[in-house]
Amino acid sequence: MSKIIAIGRELGSGGRTIGKTVASRLGIPYYDREIIDKTAEESGLAIDFVESNEQKISSDLLYKFGMGMSYGYGNQIMPISNQIYRAQMKVIKDLADKGPCVIVGRCADYILKDYENLLRVFIYSDIDHRIEHAVRFYGMNEQNAKKTIRKSDKERARHYNLFTDNTWGDRSNYDLMLDSGYLGLDKCADLICYLSTDS
Amino acid sequence: MSKIIAIGRELGSGGRTIGKTVASRLGIPYYDREIIDKTAEESGLAIDFVESNEQKISSDLLYKFGMGMSYGYGNQIMPISNQIYRAQMKVIKDLADKGPCVIVGRCADYILKDYENLLRVFIYSDIDHRIEHAVRFYGMNEQNAKKTIRKSDKERARHYNLFTDNTWGDRSNYDLMLDSGYLGLDKCADLICYLSTDS
Repeated sequence: MSKIIAIGRELGSGGRTIGKTVASRLGIPYYDREIIDKTAEESGLAIDFVESNEQKISSDLLYKFGMGMSYGYGNQIMPISNQIYRAQMKVIKDLADKGPCVIVGRCADYILKDYENLLRVFIYSDIDHRIEHAVRFYGMNEQNAKKTIRKSDKERARHYNLFTDNTWGDRSNYDLMLDSGYLGLDKCADLICYLSTDS
Repeated sequence: MSKIIAIGRELGSGGRTIGKTVASRLGIPYYDREIIDKTAEESGLAIDFVESNEQKISSDLLYKFGMGMSYGYGNQIMPISNQIYRAQMKVIKDLADKGPCVIVGRCADYILKDYENLLRVFIYSDIDHRIEHAVRFYGMNEQNAKKTIRKSDKERARHYNLFTDNTWGDRSNYDLMLDSGYLGLDKCADLICYLSTDS
């Protein structure tokens, strides 16, 4: 049986492409859009709003909404970013309970850490490969790509570190860390598939 | 053709065993004892002294010898720990120039970073697996194992960080990082062999 595969990744490392390839090769679901839709449903927030804010804690969101507006959730009053995280945590666990799958980002490695059948992967790369990937696949120019990558690293780290006890990208959170710029996306997928099927 | 494989590792992670297995499976040399002997020859220091001090900068060595005694090396006056490192760097490059091989520790990932045919691996594990490994293979009791592991982490980090521009165990220095406690030593060897032969 395949594993539940949680993939953390740096922007421009090709983690999403690797995740899709792995899911397709193993014949297991790759959850992405579904997580946003279900999180919106679970939290009662608009899909667009969840999509824009689910994987980051921008300082805007934290101050304008987080500190200012707050929402009831059970017996607790919590900032909206926390509300999205809590809803998403439930959605991710519900999906993992269904069986083997691939989930990219969204602190899934942490949320699912007690699942026995979990493989936690982190995909990273040097800045040049990441810029090249962003220019090619996101249609950015080089300067914008570099700026966006730096901003994304900060946002992802802030989000992950705030909602988990861990540090984003630190080896202690992952079973396997792969430099996709050196290894190439296909070989990264090969390694993950190998570890997910041969147990 | 196989690659030159530089394996950094935490004490008790089984990195040395993995390195030997990989070398044996690929039919390439695993350099260990030879590096110590050749470093002693190159530096003019005693083999025992090199063996005790080659992969660490103990505060004793740094202060008693490094700051106090110094040795001429070319036109430079340098502390003895630097003298060992410089000699070992030459030995490692000479060995790598001979062709594919496995070298564990000794900043080889950094020293050989400009070699095209290099695969840089880091092996790590959680503390429980490392203690178990140390008890089983080094004959330590649990308490000693834990203490030795903590001390080794500090020493290896201090040594690596002092002699390279990088941070020991940081993903940016490695192409592949493997949790041997989760994956098992054999699977770690499988992955490294796969990446070293299929290019």
